[in-house]
Amino acid sequence: MTYILNHINEPQDLKKLNGEQLNRLASEIREALIKRVSITGGHFGPNLGIIEATIALHYVFNSPIDKMVYDVSHQCYCHKMLTGRKEGFLDESQFNQFSGFTNPDESAHDYFKIGHTSTSISLACGLAKARDLKGDKENIIAVIGDGSLSGGEALEGLDYALELQSNLIIVVNDNDISIAENHGGLYQNLKALRDSNGTYECNLFKAMGLDYVFVKDGNDIEALVKAFQSVKDSTKPVVVHICTQKGKGYSIAEQNKEGWHYCAPFDIETGKPIAAHAGENYSSITADYLLEKMKADPTVIAITSAGPGIMGFSKEKRKLAGGQLIDVGIAEEHAIGMASGIATNGGKPVYGTYSTFLQRTYDQISQDVCINKSPVTILVYGASIYAMRDITHVGIYDIAMISNIPDLVYLAPTTKEEYLAMVDWSIEQNEYPVAIRVPAPNVISTGEKVEIDFGKLNAYQVKQKGSKVAILALGSFYTLGEEVAEKITSLTGEKPTLINPIYVTGVDEKLMESLKKDHDLIITLEDGILDGGFGEKITRFYGPSDMKVLNYGYKKTFLDRYNPEEVLEENRLTVEQIIEDIERLIK
Amino acid sequence: MTYILNHINEPQDLKKLNGEQLNRLASEIREALIKRVSITGGHFGPNLGIIEATIALHYVFNSPIDKMVYDVSHQCYCHKMLTGRKEGFLDESQFNQFSGFTNPDESAHDYFKIGHTSTSISLACGLAKARDLKGDKENIIAVIGDGSLSGGEALEGLDYALELQSNLIIVVNDNDISIAENHGGLYQNLKALRDSNGTYECNLFKAMGLDYVFVKDGNDIEALVKAFQSVKDSTKPVVVHICTQKGKGYSIAEQNKEGWHYCAPFDIETGKPIAAHAGENYSSITADYLLEKMKADPTVIAITSAGPGIMGFSKEKRKLAGGQLIDVGIAEEHAIGMASGIATNGGKPVYGTYSTFLQRTYDQISQDVCINKSPVTILVYGASIYAMRDITHVGIYDIAMISNIPDLVYLAPTTKEEYLAMVDWSIEQNEYPVAIRVPAPNVISTGEKVEIDFGKLNAYQVKQKGSKVAILALGSFYTLGEEVAEKITSLTGEKPTLINPIYVTGVDEKLMESLKKDHDLIITLEDGILDGGFGEKITRFYGPSDMKVLNYGYKKTFLDRYNPEEVLEENRLTVEQIIEDIERLIK
Repeated sequence: MTYILNHINEPQDLKKLNGEQLNRLASEIREALIKRVSITGGHFGPNLGIIEATIALHYVFNSPIDKMVYDVSHQCYCHKMLTGRKEGFLDESQFNQFSGFTNPDESAHDYFKIGHTSTSISLACGLAKARDLKGDKENIIAVIGDGSLSGGEALEGLDYALELQSNLIIVVNDNDISIAENHGGLYQNLKALRDSNGTYECNLFKAMGLDYVFVKDGNDIEALVKAFQSVKDSTKPVVVHICTQKGKGYSIAEQNKEGWHYCAPFDIETGKPIAAHAGENYSSITADYLLEKMKADPTVIAITSAGPGIMGFSKEKRKLAGGQLIDVGIAEEHAIGMASGIATNGGKPVYGTYSTFLQRTYDQISQDVCINKSPVTILVYGASIYAMRDITHVGIYDIAMISNIPDLVYLAPTTKEEYLAMVDWSIEQNEYPVAIRVPAPNVISTGEKVEIDFGKLNAYQVKQKGSKVAILALGSFYTLGEEVAEKITSLTGEKPTLINPIYVTGVDEKLMESLKKDHDLIITLEDGILDGGFGEKITRFYGPSDMKVLNYGYKKTFLDRYNPEEVLEENRLTVEQIIEDIERLIK
Repeated sequence: MTYILNHINEPQDLKKLNGEQLNRLASEIREALIKRVSITGGHFGPNLGIIEATIALHYVFNSPIDKMVYDVSHQCYCHKMLTGRKEGFLDESQFNQFSGFTNPDESAHDYFKIGHTSTSISLACGLAKARDLKGDKENIIAVIGDGSLSGGEALEGLDYALELQSNLIIVVNDNDISIAENHGGLYQNLKALRDSNGTYECNLFKAMGLDYVFVKDGNDIEALVKAFQSVKDSTKPVVVHICTQKGKGYSIAEQNKEGWHYCAPFDIETGKPIAAHAGENYSSITADYLLEKMKADPTVIAITSAGPGIMGFSKEKRKLAGGQLIDVGIAEEHAIGMASGIATNGGKPVYGTYSTFLQRTYDQISQDVCINKSPVTILVYGASIYAMRDITHVGIYDIAMISNIPDLVYLAPTTKEEYLAMVDWSIEQNEYPVAIRVPAPNVISTGEKVEIDFGKLNAYQVKQKGSKVAILALGSFYTLGEEVAEKITSLTGEKPTLINPIYVTGVDEKLMESLKKDHDLIITLEDGILDGGFGEKITRFYGPSDMKVLNYGYKKTFLDRYNPEEVLEENRLTVEQIIEDIERLIK
């Protein structure tokens, strides 16, 4: 039996296959994906579930003239295999050639770099509108998972779609789970639709004015082909609701959908991860701390937007938290708005998410929280060059984003003890909206209890008093500051001043003023972009003075699948480079 | 006949009134509101339409124990009159005492400062959740207009509400219009519900899992009281869909709902504004320019999120634009996502909104547009201390917000000619996402054609070559820079260098380097907050050098109903203060 996948170099090649061959192709792709992800890690469940639908889409439509937009695009592996990139999934030497998300730099079949959820309908509406303006006729298809549907941009897009009055095919890939279980009223509606074979009268999509087609078995290529053919060249927006099985074909993943949404390299036989677990991390530290806190105080409440694992809330710990943990689904804006409401009525909300996803809720942080001075606690994870490295997930922009919002107190702890002291202070105080930049990549623990009143805003900590050079080393970069300080001492015999600024959002003007006496140079170090960052506030303070200031951080660029050490070097962030710069300035 | 309103000092006083008295009260309030807004200006239509509902809410519920959250809160005038603040609407000497939005600083009956739309359901969910955690039992009520329903945060909240499994009353105030006409599929659903007396089976709210009550005449106090009584102390989230008439009781406003959403002081008899129209403004300039452009190029398309007037698209001009103007409704995220899609498929999208509302779509600007380098044009209006002055609407935070997003080109024109040249360049180029900071408050026109290739990024314009002091005067503050330059010359006989930086997002490093030769001091002027702003980039450039730099802009605070001249003075932004500072530094 020939290996069909070998003959698929572009979607057109699919069209020559018969039903049986299409099914065999699905099996080949499934086997290849399991093997590939077992070696590289990656999004697993979403990709296994959508193989048949992807084959059917490419069988029916004519990509790249017809245009497919994959929401969040972590389910695009099969799409990539069918569009000229199969080697990236079959040939181990090429496993790193393609990103885990759609990417127009790789292929004409990809239209956008996408990694945040809930954007596909809006992007597809745009493609469709431009098509209409130009008088073209291609099909525009948005593929969106049920989990992504709850996001504001997706719902706005769903509401808008009708206005197009032209071709737009929204494939709702319903596998009945987000990253963790789904939350929200619309999921009852999806269930009612599944249970009624799509006939349930009160239909969310129809309520938005859209046509609707239901496919009971979204892993049945024949049924999918029929459905897609029925909507091809539609002159109105239409929803095709397909029910798929997340993790299909790998029984361990079928059983534990949450655990296999994304996975590290694993042993195919046992499903066990290949590398050992890495001990303590800030996620588990956070959940353990909050669970204790919740026990003692029924008004403490953790909020997640579909990522309970970010704050360390595994299934077991979610049970322990009970009603004191809310998962709002993918709905970051609502999460922050709701947090403000909770704080206003006397609750103690703690919202945790990745730096990159916090971007979703800038306005709510500013308006719902900060203007109202709601004492909300926001934990910002993955805010480091060492965190996620796909262009859409890089976490080095948060300081520039939120630290310039008035009345927010943004804290940057350097150790586990500082972190927990800050979280505790933030939960118990009533005056400030607070964000805390969870350190990365490692947990540094001193074992010493931290007793700082963080309510004395912008009081930096002088960790070593010296002269000539003062180093302000923020958060995760505190250890870099220590290393630079030690190097200076070892080279010159003189001790520089070393400061832990703690506060991202303000300047300790008194301390900064005092440094003018016996210092010539200030060094700022931050694990974020320079533009709009912490260092610039310090430099502005010294602008009219004789003090020289060197700001270290990253250039304002989008990074993609980078080596952190290279980025550090490109930005002169090694100890040697910093020493070199200092020596050039201070002879 | 006694004047009932005189006896209403708190909501409890309402409860003593009979039906006829409640109706008389509504008339008194209506008359008072018309008179008051005719003198002060303000939100008119929304307030006239919701008088009866507000009376009924306060009659049935027990504020402030029961808690009401008014979405966007520009319909809260009647609420204020019933909650101890009637003098602010009856006594001309107190007309400025209370803000036009809910404000907890004014009254225990207000829970949030709100001015952006679509937040009420999320905020109310938070109040409800905290209530449940504390074991309290009060009613939580969100009042949201049909126009606000299309916003992502509102839809996220609507989806989430069911999860509460406890009391939450969502009053949907449906007057069948947003600021302009509604757009989106959900409005067909509202219409079907109105037309069927609430019985239409496919019901958006029920599809979200919510209970539903319909009130055909939302200006009938008796019917409203009955409906609210039926849901009072409900143990599940419920939507009360009431149909009201925007502008009710002032026939000119009933006829022209869009024109009377907000109004300037006017003559009650004729409806004519009291002050004469202020001639040319950037809104009409923009629409006129775009209409020409659209005629010549069918792929040019303007996008608004429920504020077509911001870009100057009056009803007449909307007709001229036809399908080349899209109103997506209140849905800023979708607007930007869709713009990216349009640009990707060869269209030329121009999205215009106020600085303050652009906050709604930070993530989409970063992810959907900038990561994808989509050549979208974003026009940022009201980005000035002279623009809107309510705390929720102040427009001085945009530079800090968007100028630190990689790959965005943010331009700050100083004149009408520069502005139009930039818009034209941006529409025609294919390389960069571009935002343009529409100048404020006045239109300055030189009559000279601007021929700059803005694609040569970060090439500042030296308008006057001098020495010692260089002034970088950005956008709207260019005239301030000119004044400072003149003053220096008149005082010292020496000419300073005067620069129009044009680019908010980057530093002209070559020019800045060259200034080191014969300049000792750099002045930066920007009509925005200093933190994360333009000036700090300049200061960082000079950090390691001997150059002294003074950054002028605003302190990072929330301002509310301020006098611009006072704010300028507080931030040392008068010509005299700047000269003083310069003299102190350069002896």
